[in-house]
Amino acid sequence: MTITPPALSVFESLESEVRSYCRGWPAVFDRAQGARLTDEDGHSYLDFFAGAGSLNYGHNNPVLKRALIDYIERDGITHGLDMATTAKRAFLETFQNVILRPRDLPYKVMFPGPTGTNAVEAALKLARKVKGRESIVSFTNAFHGMSLGSLAVTGNAFKRAGAGIPLVHGTPMPFDNYLDGRVPDFLWFERLLEDQGSGLNKPAAVIVETVQGEGGINVARAEWLRALADLCRRRDMLLIVDDIQMGCGRTGAFFSFEEAGIVPDIVTVSKSISGYGLPLSLCLFKGELDVWEPGEHNGTFRGNNPAFVTATAALEAYWADGQMEKHTLARGEQVEQALLALCTEHGRLGASYRGRGLVWGLEFADPARASEVCARAFELGLLLETSGPQSEVVKLLPPLTITPEELDEGLRTLARAVAATV
Amino acid sequence: MTITPPALSVFESLESEVRSYCRGWPAVFDRAQGARLTDEDGHSYLDFFAGAGSLNYGHNNPVLKRALIDYIERDGITHGLDMATTAKRAFLETFQNVILRPRDLPYKVMFPGPTGTNAVEAALKLARKVKGRESIVSFTNAFHGMSLGSLAVTGNAFKRAGAGIPLVHGTPMPFDNYLDGRVPDFLWFERLLEDQGSGLNKPAAVIVETVQGEGGINVARAEWLRALADLCRRRDMLLIVDDIQMGCGRTGAFFSFEEAGIVPDIVTVSKSISGYGLPLSLCLFKGELDVWEPGEHNGTFRGNNPAFVTATAALEAYWADGQMEKHTLARGEQVEQALLALCTEHGRLGASYRGRGLVWGLEFADPARASEVCARAFELGLLLETSGPQSEVVKLLPPLTITPEELDEGLRTLARAVAATV
Amino acid sequence: MTITPPALSVFESLESEVRSYCRGWPAVFDRAQGARLTDEDGHSYLDFFAGAGSLNYGHNNPVLKRALIDYIERDGITHGLDMATTAKRAFLETFQNVILRPRDLPYKVMFPGPTGTNAVEAALKLARKVKGRESIVSFTNAFHGMSLGSLAVTGNAFKRAGAGIPLVHGTPMPFDNYLDGRVPDFLWFERLLEDQGSGLNKPAAVIVETVQGEGGINVARAEWLRALADLCRRRDMLLIVDDIQMGCGRTGAFFSFEEAGIVPDIVTVSKSISGYGLPLSLCLFKGELDVWEPGEHNGTFRGNNPAFVTATAALEAYWADGQMEKHTLARGEQVEQALLALCTEHGRLGASYRGRGLVWGLEFADPARASEVCARAFELGLLLETSGPQSEVVKLLPPLTITPEELDEGLRTLARAVAATV
Amino acid sequence: MTITPPALSVFESLESEVRSYCRGWPAVFDRAQGARLTDEDGHSYLDFFAGAGSLNYGHNNPVLKRALIDYIERDGITHGLDMATTAKRAFLETFQNVILRPRDLPYKVMFPGPTGTNAVEAALKLARKVKGRESIVSFTNAFHGMSLGSLAVTGNAFKRAGAGIPLVHGTPMPFDNYLDGRVPDFLWFERLLEDQGSGLNKPAAVIVETVQGEGGINVARAEWLRALADLCRRRDMLLIVDDIQMGCGRTGAFFSFEEAGIVPDIVTVSKSISGYGLPLSLCLFKGELDVWEPGEHNGTFRGNNPAFVTATAALEAYWADGQMEKHTLARGEQVEQALLALCTEHGRLGASYRGRGLVWGLEFADPARASEVCARAFELGLLLETSGPQSEVVKLLPPLTITPEELDEGLRTLARAVAATV
Repeated sequence: MTITPPALSVFESLESEVRSYCRGWPAVFDRAQGARLTDEDGHSYLDFFAGAGSLNYGHNNPVLKRALIDYIERDGITHGLDMATTAKRAFLETFQNVILRPRDLPYKVMFPGPTGTNAVEAALKLARKVKGRESIVSFTNAFHGMSLGSLAVTGNAFKRAGAGIPLVHGTPMPFDNYLDGRVPDFLWFERLLEDQGSGLNKPAAVIVETVQGEGGINVARAEWLRALADLCRRRDMLLIVDDIQMGCGRTGAFFSFEEAGIVPDIVTVSKSISGYGLPLSLCLFKGELDVWEPGEHNGTFRGNNPAFVTATAALEAYWADGQMEKHTLARGEQVEQALLALCTEHGRLGASYRGRGLVWGLEFADPARASEVCARAFELGLLLETSGPQSEVVKLLPPLTITPEELDEGLRTLARAVAATV
Repeated sequence: MTITPPALSVFESLESEVRSYCRGWPAVFDRAQGARLTDEDGHSYLDFFAGAGSLNYGHNNPVLKRALIDYIERDGITHGLDMATTAKRAFLETFQNVILRPRDLPYKVMFPGPTGTNAVEAALKLARKVKGRESIVSFTNAFHGMSLGSLAVTGNAFKRAGAGIPLVHGTPMPFDNYLDGRVPDFLWFERLLEDQGSGLNKPAAVIVETVQGEGGINVARAEWLRALADLCRRRDMLLIVDDIQMGCGRTGAFFSFEEAGIVPDIVTVSKSISGYGLPLSLCLFKGELDVWEPGEHNGTFRGNNPAFVTATAALEAYWADGQMEKHTLARGEQVEQALLALCTEHGRLGASYRGRGLVWGLEFADPARASEVCARAFELGLLLETSGPQSEVVKLLPPLTITPEELDEGLRTLARAVAATV
Repeated sequence: MTITPPALSVFESLESEVRSYCRGWPAVFDRAQGARLTDEDGHSYLDFFAGAGSLNYGHNNPVLKRALIDYIERDGITHGLDMATTAKRAFLETFQNVILRPRDLPYKVMFPGPTGTNAVEAALKLARKVKGRESIVSFTNAFHGMSLGSLAVTGNAFKRAGAGIPLVHGTPMPFDNYLDGRVPDFLWFERLLEDQGSGLNKPAAVIVETVQGEGGINVARAEWLRALADLCRRRDMLLIVDDIQMGCGRTGAFFSFEEAGIVPDIVTVSKSISGYGLPLSLCLFKGELDVWEPGEHNGTFRGNNPAFVTATAALEAYWADGQMEKHTLARGEQVEQALLALCTEHGRLGASYRGRGLVWGLEFADPARASEVCARAFELGLLLETSGPQSEVVKLLPPLTITPEELDEGLRTLARAVAATV
Repeated sequence: MTITPPALSVFESLESEVRSYCRGWPAVFDRAQGARLTDEDGHSYLDFFAGAGSLNYGHNNPVLKRALIDYIERDGITHGLDMATTAKRAFLETFQNVILRPRDLPYKVMFPGPTGTNAVEAALKLARKVKGRESIVSFTNAFHGMSLGSLAVTGNAFKRAGAGIPLVHGTPMPFDNYLDGRVPDFLWFERLLEDQGSGLNKPAAVIVETVQGEGGINVARAEWLRALADLCRRRDMLLIVDDIQMGCGRTGAFFSFEEAGIVPDIVTVSKSISGYGLPLSLCLFKGELDVWEPGEHNGTFRGNNPAFVTATAALEAYWADGQMEKHTLARGEQVEQALLALCTEHGRLGASYRGRGLVWGLEFADPARASEVCARAFELGLLLETSGPQSEVVKLLPPLTITPEELDEGLRTLARAVAATV
């Protein structure tokens, strides 16, 4: 495919230098359906990026689209702050019936504002309020958001520097396998907690991603997560699972922590919860933690009713039975086999891969190769982004609803892109 | 009207105690059009609340609705992070042509995430980065948002306490008329700045609302704003106007600071910018302040393309000429006359009013009366909320597109509600 | 007198650039007695500086000297942490009998470490512990010390910048007459406290100097102090008087706050408490505030026993009757008359003066003149330092035990120094 | 010996509850000489405590006493802020000639105030200023002082809680052997530094004690210290050695870091530097770090001239040749043999010991035994304190000038005290 430089002028002249994705993908996108986007010149792109995990059901999923248009057509409430609406009630009931009850999860639901960082801010505030302590433990290479509360528990030095103030009240601990298995899990963390002279301010909570998406597709083992949950329980710290990127089925089950059999105290959900790419986020927590006063945390768009509508439709269409999880795991195996073949073939690149469900990372010995591969993939019509502190990992994040054929096509394109960088 | 207690069960059993509006308005809303909402029992409500300023063009405005449905029908990009899209380009070009150029405003546009607090966080980060200082000056009774950066410059003690950590790096200064005219404007602030022994950490920026909506409809005079802008310029501080609630025409002009003839360094916009109640926010700043590195601030929903579509349609429909501003000011006069009559009639209640454009506040000698009035108004089919640190002010915030007849109806209902509390 | 440049080599080559007094007074001092110092070249200097308030009884006061040598000779305990010693008991009993009981002051005594900043740190920690709040209110141009806790409540921007971290948890309020009488006392402070939307974090305590020594000899009126004490009581904040420089008789009475008739909750004392210039400090607080756990605050030199010995001797010699206060006030009048004459004579210099007891400030219209006057005074054999944020005030701080003749001599030298700068 | 309860009344009625040592040693001490104290009832106590390391040359050392009395007798300057004095010059020259030059140490000397915490505060301020970063790394079980800057890098949870504010800008790392040799030295610390996604705010400096006195007599190996110095150099962090308790010969050499062959960037010295128990402290740093502005850090008692006099006498008497170090190491071996015998004899107590020079710790399997041993030792006329986060270690810290016979006597008393607790 030949890419004609698009007319980017207003983006370059008017939009802030902070813009980023549009730099790596110099196209002006116009339409999208399922796993494919089309730019204004008619070029088609296969999407292994899925809105950074916000489009698990694909672009403009027809089932959700129908529900959304119907709602808009009939003048359903669009903006409702936290007023009670029929759309919100339908969502709450469906979320309870389809998600919480079958999993026996004892959560209350809070709408903290429609973005992931809103949910993380609410989770941290609640944990601090419940425990009466300021300190939060996060993990190396964590990513939780860009507002000051979330940024303080995010690892990336470049993003942290953007705060303009020293980020405090957080302490990083080693994520699973961070020290290459040379140190027993939680040895350091538990020692700090048990020693009254350690200098660690006692944490209110621990916040963790089960798979670190932005941090480089680092997958925590189920036993590590169980040990963490146990540590939190024994040491009187709340466990917050940030399931914003890995929830909503990305790893197979609806919540990414289900596999480990743990029940976090607080869970943040966003990205694919609306199903259609509309802003929505949830903060879930055990009932006994619901110590909020009315209005103690609020936000203008916390009741994004069109998102309730598509979220409800997505839950009903995809989660009423176990097909979604099976499908995702099957597609994951397909990815794994392709990555195995790719790493075997290009053995001298020192490539390795890891992942769970439909989130996979491909890392090379030379960190710069990941960006090259993504650039070549774009030229070949495949959207792929990098992750990791040095952008050293190619991240595969296709829609969960991708067909085996599309997935195969994308994996073959990836193989060509890798070959082109050798 | 008789209100039958609605079936609120799932809200009460599943939604967090943090919910608030649904408590004061015990109805389950279903549909809305223009200035009216309808609940599931068919009761109709006139809206003097407008989504806390997010629905300046009314509910489900037909012009915007048409554009939105067309876009969804044709599978336009829904979720795009900060990829270039045709919808985003149309918005940027329209915003430049309809808003920035005619006002000679030298701003770059940043999409910091779709909520107001995202925009405020981005503004504060940028100001700190540009000036290399941590401290921000805000004003008494300011409201800027619930994430930690925004909350630190918000005045409300109840909301601040929710942070669970000490909120630092901010210092409050007296808003216009805070000390009842007993002190020259900025006497204290300027003295602190000029005195090398004052103990004030030199601020990177000052953040201000031209009219404090949540703080009690406190209206800053144009000359006070000009003096503030002058002080910022002389003392090397950036001026941030938070126009989230008062922008998009609420006070008449598109930006609320236009009347004062000032050009802030940074402006935050959200709420009504999408026009349809969809989450969207902008952070505008002078070109020379655009020192962001690519991706230094990001966010999953910063490119909410359906919102770009309705925002573009709103700008084209309402701001291509000066009719909107004239209409708003005329409706404002209608409100003012009604409030004058009301205060005159109920002189012994010690009522007073203030406002600009279509944002007005009605305060009583007895702070508790404001909540009573809103409760009676709800029973009479009118949505009104309170504001101010003690919820002591009835806040009138109808859609800008309200008809004179609807406005008159609402004002008469308000008068009945006041009379009912005497 | 002709000053031969002294051999300063080791000071210049080995001592840090942070040294300061030795720059303005380029002499190597060797001996001292009463109000006079002698340098190694035999030049004599009259002392209107008194160790920045640490030598209220003059240099090497013979009564104290005798007690000190006797104690050392007999091998009394020198270093004792906070062990019980006979020297400490004598001090405690004398302090109780001579100072606390006659004034009916309900204080417990804490030895927080031997410097003023140790005492301030202890006072702030205790106030925060008692009230469970972090925030402290201090005043413009306050000076409380150089360690991080004290520095955060100190006004001087140059010294604050030395912290290397943002100084937080403190908010400055206007000291008495800071706004030239244009604003009612405490209007702003009280408004912030009563308004739940002001944005002021509720303070645990207020820390104040009755006369700001480093800040420019700013004298708080007795009624201002009383109003402050009343405000603290009404608003549930502890009142801390930092009497490190102004206590021990500097303003006449032993404590500088006695004149106002207030009883602060916490008082810090240091500088002249040992009487001999030996490091010692006290933190006094009402008995009900004594919520310290044993050892919760400690310090190696908190029991400086030789200082207990001289402190006890000073209290017995000077404070068993009311002569000291009378003497100080009489000498103060002598200073005041001289300053009046001086300001009258040099009317065109725009000079003004203020003070209490034996602490006085002389300010000129041209801030640079103060340093010139001190430099000329040094050449004429008089030690005088400047104070104020721009070093714009000549500070007169002679020993309280100075004779009328010495005082007169110094005042005449000052007049010559002023004349020499015209 | 029978202890009659002393008349503690004024201590109990007037002194704050914060007092601590006087609780464990219920005697009123009166005189002291060398390694012995005498209480007011004539009881004699052998001192294995030495003013927590402030009395390395014993109580009221006759050589220093003579110099001190002579100085006082001849009216030498007592209090001099940072004026140049002959006493200060003598100290600086002697410190340069006897300590710095023979060791080829490139340090400037700063007098930051007379206590250890003043020195630590100055060191941290300087490091932050030089590097332009806020963060400091300290170690588990570190003790650096009680003012807010020092407390933030101190490990003890009880003392940290006394701050009343969250202590931030510091991160603890594992001290040598903290994880029982299960983890390679600095694996975690270096990984955090090299990983741009680790979440560690880049430190300005690392502060370390070579032997943690308050932390439980934890001895860092020379190779660990060398690896730390190397890490600091490679990662652009300043290395601060807090030698307040372990310097001045306590471990043998004058500075405790000499054995490791490292040259820290900044060194804090206090406690025994005056030799006589008088308050004095130094902050030493490499010349190129001397970026202080004149007066940027100050303090009333930073020029404690009597302490200069005794410090000079101590350096001349004890450090002009290598005898002091040899003596200390010989006495250390005497202690080690006794502890070996003691631990062997009482094998079933699970006792272990560690130390260097003349600082030793004796730990029991049962943490409570340490306090019992100290209590019995006091009854037997021996002063011993505990250390460690649970006060689980008996700390042996006799004067360096103790005779072999006195040391033997004390060790035998210790053995009796241990036996008495079995």
